[in-house]
Amino acid sequence: MTQCFYKDPQVKNAEERTIKYMETGPMPSFEITATSGNARVGKLSTSRHSLPTPTFMPVGTRGSVRTLTSTDLEELGADIILGNTYHLMLRPGETVIEQSGGIHGFADWNRLVLTDSGGYQIFSLQPDVDDDGVTFKSTYDGSFHRLTPQNAVDIQCALGSDIQMALDVCPPLPSEKSVIEVAVERTKIWAGIAREHFIRRREAEGFERAQFGIVQGGVDLSLRRISAEQIVDIGFDGYAIGGLSVGESREDMIEPMVESLRTLPVDRPRYFMGLGDPAGLVEAVGVGVDMFDCVWPTRLARHGTALTAAGRINLGAARYANSQEPIDPDFPQSPAARWSRGYLRHLLSVGEPAAARILTLHNLAWLFDMMHRMRTAIENDTFHKFRKDILDVWA
Amino acid sequence: MTQCFYKDPQVKNAEERTIKYMETGPMPSFEITATSGNARVGKLSTSRHSLPTPTFMPVGTRGSVRTLTSTDLEELGADIILGNTYHLMLRPGETVIEQSGGIHGFADWNRLVLTDSGGYQIFSLQPDVDDDGVTFKSTYDGSFHRLTPQNAVDIQCALGSDIQMALDVCPPLPSEKSVIEVAVERTKIWAGIAREHFIRRREAEGFERAQFGIVQGGVDLSLRRISAEQIVDIGFDGYAIGGLSVGESREDMIEPMVESLRTLPVDRPRYFMGLGDPAGLVEAVGVGVDMFDCVWPTRLARHGTALTAAGRINLGAARYANSQEPIDPDFPQSPAARWSRGYLRHLLSVGEPAAARILTLHNLAWLFDMMHRMRTAIENDTFHKFRKDILDVWA
Repeated sequence: MTQCFYKDPQVKNAEERTIKYMETGPMPSFEITATSGNARVGKLSTSRHSLPTPTFMPVGTRGSVRTLTSTDLEELGADIILGNTYHLMLRPGETVIEQSGGIHGFADWNRLVLTDSGGYQIFSLQPDVDDDGVTFKSTYDGSFHRLTPQNAVDIQCALGSDIQMALDVCPPLPSEKSVIEVAVERTKIWAGIAREHFIRRREAEGFERAQFGIVQGGVDLSLRRISAEQIVDIGFDGYAIGGLSVGESREDMIEPMVESLRTLPVDRPRYFMGLGDPAGLVEAVGVGVDMFDCVWPTRLARHGTALTAAGRINLGAARYANSQEPIDPDFPQSPAARWSRGYLRHLLSVGEPAAARILTLHNLAWLFDMMHRMRTAIENDTFHKFRKDILDVWA
Repeated sequence: MTQCFYKDPQVKNAEERTIKYMETGPMPSFEITATSGNARVGKLSTSRHSLPTPTFMPVGTRGSVRTLTSTDLEELGADIILGNTYHLMLRPGETVIEQSGGIHGFADWNRLVLTDSGGYQIFSLQPDVDDDGVTFKSTYDGSFHRLTPQNAVDIQCALGSDIQMALDVCPPLPSEKSVIEVAVERTKIWAGIAREHFIRRREAEGFERAQFGIVQGGVDLSLRRISAEQIVDIGFDGYAIGGLSVGESREDMIEPMVESLRTLPVDRPRYFMGLGDPAGLVEAVGVGVDMFDCVWPTRLARHGTALTAAGRINLGAARYANSQEPIDPDFPQSPAARWSRGYLRHLLSVGEPAAARILTLHNLAWLFDMMHRMRTAIENDTFHKFRKDILDVWA
């Protein structure tokens, strides 16, 4: 048990203070408190914040969940948000964020932050990959940048994330098997380098950060198993399933997901990257996944689509013009419950920016409520029925 | 004293109820509670809501103050918002709004609503004006519409405004004297028709609404005096100064404003249309104006400019990239105080929509606070110094 000091990222008005904390074991601490079949409820804790799993993490790409502030996210009860390393390293740059006390200080967000490694965005830009890293062109100004397993750790440390991801190679689907094989191999090598670099920094600096490894392998079951074994062999604080939910069918997603999970240690958090629709969530929770992120609910909101107990509805449609009903009559606790579908339809039709925010608040509240109901179902060992009810509406 | 019933505009989920109220005299009731020179503090009341004057009304053009919700406006302490008849009659149309319980029910706003007559927007479209009204082309779909003194009353009644404006003719500045003369004459004729129509409806329906008349006359002092006398002769519940703050210099604005005010009854509210910058506000309050509206603070916000004790600052500027300071260190009560200039600069530079909302919240809170300090200065009879301090920074 080591006692150490770190700079509190909640720095306001350049006034700095230090906070003591006690390192208490693997980070984050994670405890399973209930199961129903393979679904599980857990408690994930750092000294900054504790949260129940399964959890959904809204995506705050550029240091803000689009249309929302940290006050909004607190009021919604968000426990953890995701920041995109690719975007933040380019704008405003990790140094600016580090000088502001990390994403926590920069956005004044007191709960948890997970950052991706940047790999996912970068591999969609057809970058120049070699054994040591990846060189890519900024979509902001065309300048060239390089990400390696080591500097991905350093950048995410500068961003101040509580949970960071090892740099992986994320090929599109479908891809040739040989492409997936190379991706799995490089992901393994990079994971080893990233883990070593991270552990060295953690031991030297005593910071309270976690690093998750990512399983790749496309939809090939044997490659999934190999990748999972390799990443678990290296040993991380938690494990992510990457390279799925990238356009393949739901059927094609399930088996590789299950195969990835088979090898992962039960006592560590498992994170499915890029999944957030209700059907996908119950399928993944049903086989033991704990953490999720996706732009789905917030992007839908900005396009005028709301989540309801009866499924999704497009509030831009003319048929809602005279509706006095709230967005979801079955969800009176929605932060948007005071406004009618007719009012929102009007705001959408004339391009009022309040519409996107109201729908973003609603969709996140709706999804957080679904996660809460899902955890309750697991605790009551009625998850099987909960899953069926969700799939009836959403699959 | 007539007892009457009206449909409560706060209709939710199509559930309707009726509320009794007692008509208690001229609407709204208005009482001067303090003066300092010609500046005055008053209390403007309807059975729905009371507010202190001088007051600033945010502009909710299309049934929403851009980027904000009614919850935001309540938290900011806004007492009264302005809706634009031109926009709302075209989208979603006054009938949709009427069926939702007026703007109050539509936007779920429990405090006061003032609507303009639509004239200001329409006259900027070079419409076809005749003695009986004005025909104009919708900027939404090119369709033709007609506004008359009578139907401007009816449309504003359908919008459910607490305070409505008589249809006026608002010429641009500069204009030929003959153009201003025709505008003054038509404004007078239309005001008479509008008032008669409004009074007939008020007597028949017993609604609790107020109608204000508008003084025109451009920058010509004799036409201002003539117009003010004509409008006061007709007799309204309150009086507005229109046709100024439309591009003329501040010097050119002051005298016609003073000339317009000279004739207006001291015991009724006086509203300067389209003015909202700090220097303009203190100049107008200093000569006895009570009410203001302007898109200035909210439009500035959407362009990245914040109001501070030291003047306006453009937070999009690169020099703020590393700033840990809040927007206005002298205004710690700002709803935006928790975020740094650096964070806002980042959000602006990457186009995050949260920036516009945060700055809109800040600018309105800042302006409301300035109005509060101004009222306190009038109550303490220190308005002269307050005005000088504001002009030192803002003129």
